[in-house]
Amino acid sequence: VRRYPERGRSDRTELYELLDAGLIGFLGTVTNGHPRVLPMVYGRIGDTLYIHGAVKNQALVAVGEGAEVCVTVTNVYGLVLANSMFHHSLNFRSAMIYATPRVVTEPDERLAGLRAAVNQLVPGRGDELPDPTPKQLAQTTVIAISLEEASVKVRSGPPGGDPEDYETDIWGGVLPLVQTWNPVETDPRLRDGIDPPAHVLRLVGQPAYERAQGRPDLSDPR
Amino acid sequence: VRRYPERGRSDRTELYELLDAGLIGFLGTVTNGHPRVLPMVYGRIGDTLYIHGAVKNQALVAVGEGAEVCVTVTNVYGLVLANSMFHHSLNFRSAMIYATPRVVTEPDERLAGLRAAVNQLVPGRGDELPDPTPKQLAQTTVIAISLEEASVKVRSGPPGGDPEDYETDIWGGVLPLVQTWNPVETDPRLRDGIDPPAHVLRLVGQPAYERAQGRPDLSDPR
Repeated sequence: VRRYPERGRSDRTELYELLDAGLIGFLGTVTNGHPRVLPMVYGRIGDTLYIHGAVKNQALVAVGEGAEVCVTVTNVYGLVLANSMFHHSLNFRSAMIYATPRVVTEPDERLAGLRAAVNQLVPGRGDELPDPTPKQLAQTTVIAISLEEASVKVRSGPPGGDPEDYETDIWGGVLPLVQTWNPVETDPRLRDGIDPPAHVLRLVGQPAYERAQGRPDLSDPR
Repeated sequence: VRRYPERGRSDRTELYELLDAGLIGFLGTVTNGHPRVLPMVYGRIGDTLYIHGAVKNQALVAVGEGAEVCVTVTNVYGLVLANSMFHHSLNFRSAMIYATPRVVTEPDERLAGLRAAVNQLVPGRGDELPDPTPKQLAQTTVIAISLEEASVKVRSGPPGGDPEDYETDIWGGVLPLVQTWNPVETDPRLRDGIDPPAHVLRLVGQPAYERAQGRPDLSDPR
């Protein structure tokens, strides 16, 4: 585990890349005394992760009351199939973020957080869509999570193993996981003749974790 | 959200299929008063999920002291790119399991739980490998999590949207995520001439979430 709290920005590249590659953050909170882990879409702007959800979402309500969270994002790259059970693992990059989030109230920052979440799914898309309606905004809580206290764990490469494992005739190796995008399925309710935009088409057939490469600079929330 | 606690076994097929398709469970606990979410490999036998880790793993230590957990498994099938920001989502299947786990002490059940975790990665592989060594077993905590209190949430199909969204010329649709396996990368430390087994080769090029189809019946832990 590599811990980053005391390090400068230049050391955080690995954390940013991992977060920008991911699709879901697992938001851990305590609600009514019970641990709860929710899969959530997120977006990053600089050193802040934005998560949003329904105003009534119990985890977000708890955050509004000052609850701590742990957000974990894990990108899997393959199965590590050692030739002994004990050394089985995954190849992955995983971040854990500990924070007491802030409920975002300032309208521009709320919008920026929501756009960041769409940009997280498809870079550029969040910048092109119209604002949500006032009614939609009233139904949505946006929270801001500082990346100050984050740790990153990475495993890569072939299996580990004890010397005696290699005296057997048992196969071991890595089964790489490939994630990519199939051609788009256009919403059948759309009017005729609306073509998919370039920000979507450029992803088809590309590695899913690499979609953030070439994204616009999002370091300034405004 | 569909809640299962009161339902019979026949209603649990969706939960089992979702868990069998997944690769990682996100284990939420409270340790030293702080929420913590750890990505963990898991295995299922009947109505029990087994998770293992190092004896010193803080979350597993907390479980040994009676801590509750929430385990969330989320399989993503695509990005739901609505033509309005508000209706963006993912297509997914997600399970949340709430339990106070039991630390497994009986040697046969510990072994069965560890084999289930390897079978979860590659069906059949956990049944073919030799037992871990006594030293390895001594380094490992195995916990058992009842699936009695579980909920399943599923989203599929094209985007939602309000009628006014469809008066625009903004494209919307689904970008399907495809997960599959690349050819195996054999451990370079192996002796020459050890070929990958059928249980691994049959997965290459297949959809990652479907690898459990045709798995052996694991409903009996012994």
